[in-house]
This record gives sequence, structure tokens and C-alpha cells, in this order.
Amino acid sequence: MNKVKVHAPATVANLVCGFDVFGMALAEPYDVMWVSLSNEPGIRFTHIDKYNLPTQPEKNVAGVALMAMLENVPGHKGFDVVIDKQIKPGSGLGSSAASSAGIVVAVNHLVNNIFSREDLVRFAMHGEKLASGVKHADNITPCIFGGITLVRSIFQLDIVPLTAPPMYVTVVHPQIEVKTSDARQILRKEVQLKDAIKQWGNIAGLVAGLLKEDYGLISRSLEDVIIEPVRSMLIPGFDEVKRSCKEAGALGGGISGSGPSIFMLSKEEATAKQVENVMKDVYTRLGIEFRTYVTTVNYKGVEIISE
Amino acid sequence: MNKVKVHAPATVANLVCGFDVFGMALAEPYDVMWVSLSNEPGIRFTHIDKYNLPTQPEKNVAGVALMAMLENVPGHKGFDVVIDKQIKPGSGLGSSAASSAGIVVAVNHLVNNIFSREDLVRFAMHGEKLASGVKHADNITPCIFGGITLVRSIFQLDIVPLTAPPMYVTVVHPQIEVKTSDARQILRKEVQLKDAIKQWGNIAGLVAGLLKEDYGLISRSLEDVIIEPVRSMLIPGFDEVKRSCKEAGALGGGISGSGPSIFMLSKEEATAKQVENVMKDVYTRLGIEFRTYVTTVNYKGVEIISE
Repeated sequence: MNKVKVHAPATVANLVCGFDVFGMALAEPYDVMWVSLSNEPGIRFTHIDKYNLPTQPEKNVAGVALMAMLENVPGHKGFDVVIDKQIKPGSGLGSSAASSAGIVVAVNHLVNNIFSREDLVRFAMHGEKLASGVKHADNITPCIFGGITLVRSIFQLDIVPLTAPPMYVTVVHPQIEVKTSDARQILRKEVQLKDAIKQWGNIAGLVAGLLKEDYGLISRSLEDVIIEPVRSMLIPGFDEVKRSCKEAGALGGGISGSGPSIFMLSKEEATAKQVENVMKDVYTRLGIEFRTYVTTVNYKGVEIISE
Repeated sequence: MNKVKVHAPATVANLVCGFDVFGMALAEPYDVMWVSLSNEPGIRFTHIDKYNLPTQPEKNVAGVALMAMLENVPGHKGFDVVIDKQIKPGSGLGSSAASSAGIVVAVNHLVNNIFSREDLVRFAMHGEKLASGVKHADNITPCIFGGITLVRSIFQLDIVPLTAPPMYVTVVHPQIEVKTSDARQILRKEVQLKDAIKQWGNIAGLVAGLLKEDYGLISRSLEDVIIEPVRSMLIPGFDEVKRSCKEAGALGGGISGSGPSIFMLSKEEATAKQVENVMKDVYTRLGIEFRTYVTTVNYKGVEIISE
């Protein structure tokens, strides 16, 4: 085969209490990407969306990820890549990760799957480095593996897929800009030991809740005393959205990645839709444009659609 | 009934990466305690061990725990308590927790089990407060619940029992004194965010490893970049013990509670015995007296032996 189409899903990093370690893939939205082998050397990008992303490979997150991959592929020639980006850059929904993860999964398929999923995460992390200045893997990993994932360790990469009970995810993306690099810079370099202890109680609780399918424990563990109090200041309406969504029956939730999107988990679809209404009400009242999604956890990760 | 005998087990707090949140009960050693209802008001302690612990109830950890409990028991009269302490105070093996947990479980049995296990944890924490100045529950909880436990939250007490695959535990107690209060005071009040992130990766990994019965993941997650580097300085031979035990096949381990005891987990009993030999070699060479145990996880917690 010499051509492949993939869907690369949006992802929610951190899952409230697990900054830089937890991530979750969503069924929607997703980017669509077509990748073709070419006899003409070089990597050529075409964007058919409205985001004016760079097309020079070394300035494009997918390009950087692909170049890192190609250092390990002997005898390749060229690639034509067409991207229809549906995950808005800067949304906090892993837009850059979808590009990086999508292209490495697509090209791995074209070269007969010679790389493991861990290898693909390592390549795709080069795209994240370009996008945010940091080689993080909390979006890349669920994007490639699907489901909910733990990155236990990033150097000596150690990825742990986590099972979970059925859950619905409601997302609101208020159309304001929060850059990942800015959202990282406002974090303090040190945290109080007493806060760290609360955080690791919640992290352990969330893993146990997911694996034991204990919705109550999941709900109680979706608490962040370290990152959210700082980052939420960048997101107008955050406190009200969170409080109102929980009152509407959501298990809990918080900032998706570095924001500004906010996600909420619900046990039932009806609750997830009610949560969407709550989110719409808040941002309509605040006069901030927004986009919402009611979706589920995506257990496939980047998906090969056709060849 | 008006008399009960209990075994109150030793416990390992923290489990390396989970300072103040994880704990594990051991099959050995355990304290033996006899508690009798009496028509003569008051609480009377008799120690039949060599440790000269205080017998005034308000200075005795079991006494303080019992008094906290009795505020909630109408119409009680008096108690005679005999303790044969086998868990040496100051060992890092939850000696004070065994006293506090043992007495509240025993008395709950005598008053027809009117209290939940969570209630008993709350009462017993008063004993920990007397012993160490802090109302912590990471020894109390596994002592009462048995097995491996997570204390997700201490105010709004939230206890999560964790399943685990079969494991053997080797413990060495070098006969030096490390006071819990001292071991807490040398900890920094702030931790680096990057270290906290490593720690929560390991905490999440340990919970996932235990619940998924993945020995490799358990082993990789038994890493502490925050507390151990500081506290281990108080324990001569620590680094050598840890390195040598892992070379001998242990999954991993570290300081038990605030030390000076060191524990190691192994998948096989033969490995656990080999690990014991390694520990003996190190402390024999260092000229430090020690005591070792090769035991298993205790899933019963404080056990009623006879009435």
C-alpha cells in the first residue's frame, strides 16, 4: 500500500489530579489526515482547514514527528500529507498531539508496522516539543493507545493503559486563547508537601476508582489542589462551570490539558447532555463564544480508516 | 462476652512512593492484647513486655484511642487491658498503631460491633497523634482493615482497600532509634514540582500494578524521589541494603514508615529468604544489631483470637 487515511482523536491531558501523567482519548473531535508515499523525496504538507498552520516540515509538529521517525526508517523516499484539522489549535484538546500521533501511526502503517506503539510515542513527542517547548507525552500516549493512560515515567518511557467503566465526556471550549507554554510558565516550580500528599491520595484514588469501576471513588478523586487553582484563573467562568456541572450530576472534571477547554465526566448520557446545557448557559451569559462536545472515551486511538 | 484477646499486626506505612497515603499489614510480628470489661470504672493497663510503656491511660496510645472511643459509648464502666508488645516501639513497623488499632477493635467486639471500621480508624488516630504529634492513618488503616490500603483523604476520611498479587515481605530492623517526630522534622515543607510529577507517576503505577497483579509494574513503581533521599540518611547501610536486595531478586522496597526498619517485597518465598540473608550480611558487617522477619501480607487486620 502507499496511501492511508487516519482519524487522530482529541485528548484530555492531566484528568484533573494527574498533571503530566494521565490522559484520555475522546471519540470526538478528531483530525483527518491522508498520507501518501511518494517517489519524490521530501515531506509536503497541505492543510485543507482554516488554521493556517505552517507547511514547512521543520516548523510543523507532524513534520517534526515524522522526521524523528524517518531517522529510523532506511530507504524511504518522500511523503505527501494532507491534514483536515478539526481540533482547534490552542483548545487544550491535544491538537498538536493529534497531528504528531496521527502521522506516525499513518506512516508506521505504510512501512508495515515496524515500530511499537512506545516507539511511536517517542517519535511523536518531538512534535510536542516543537508545540510547547516540553517533550511531554500525556496527550500523545492516549492518542496512540486509545483509552485512559498513565505515563508512569517519560524517560525510560513507561506507559500503563488503564481500564475504566463506561463514561460520557462533555467538553466546552470557550473561544479564548491560552498557550500551553504560558499555562506552564505560571505554575510554581515548588509545591507544598501537604498539597502534594493530597494530590497523590487523589491520583491513587483515581487509578483505583477506574480499575475497580467505582464511580463514587472516581468522583471524589477528581480534585486538584496544585495546578487547577493557578491555571483556572486564565479561564473565565471556570469555577461556575465546575460547580454547576457537578450540581447537574457530573462525576467531576476540570481543565483539559492547559485549557481553556473544560471537560466533565458523567456516568449517564442524559447527565452528560444536561452538563452541556449548563456549560452553554454559563458562556452564553458571559458573552464568550464557545463550542461543546458530548462524547465518549475513544478506545481505538489513531484509527486507520482506509488505504 | 466480657473478655477478648486480639492480635494487632505490624504495618509498613508509605510503601516507598506513597508517603502518608499507603500502608500494608504484615502477618508478623504482632502484638497480643487482652481486654476485659470491668465493673470497676477506669482504664487499667498492664504491660507484660520489656518496653516500660506508660500505663496512665492519657499517656498511653491505646489509652488515648480508647478514651476517644468511649466518648461515643454510653454506659460503659471500666476496662482492664494487658499488652504483650512484640512490635518494638520506634521500629518503623507501626508499633503505636498496633496498640491503638488493637484496643479499638477489641473493645468494639466487646460492645457488639457498634462502630464501623472507619469509625475505629478515627478513634485510633488519637493514639497516633499522641505518638507522633500528627493524626496520620497510614499505619492504623491497614492494621484495622488488613491488606494494602490507600487513605485517599484523611479529613473526610476516605479509605480504599487495594487488592494485590501474592507477595512475600522481608523486613530488617536495625536496632537504632529514629523517632517519627524527628523523621518528620527533617522533611522539607516544599517539594519540586518535577519531583512531585515523578512521584505521582509512581503512585499511580503502584496502584495499577497492585490491582492488575503486574509484578514488573509494581517493581518499577517502588521508587521515591522525595522522602527516601532525605530519611535514608538516618539509616546506616540503607543504600547498600536496597541495592543488594534488588540484586538478590526483590521487587523493591524501602524505608518502613519513618524507619529505621527497611522492607522488601518479593514474588517468591525463596527470594524473600535470600533477601533476608543479604540484609543480615550488611548489618553483621556494619556491626549493628538487627532483627529480621520473612512474612506475608496480612489480610485480616487486627484479629479476634478468643473471647
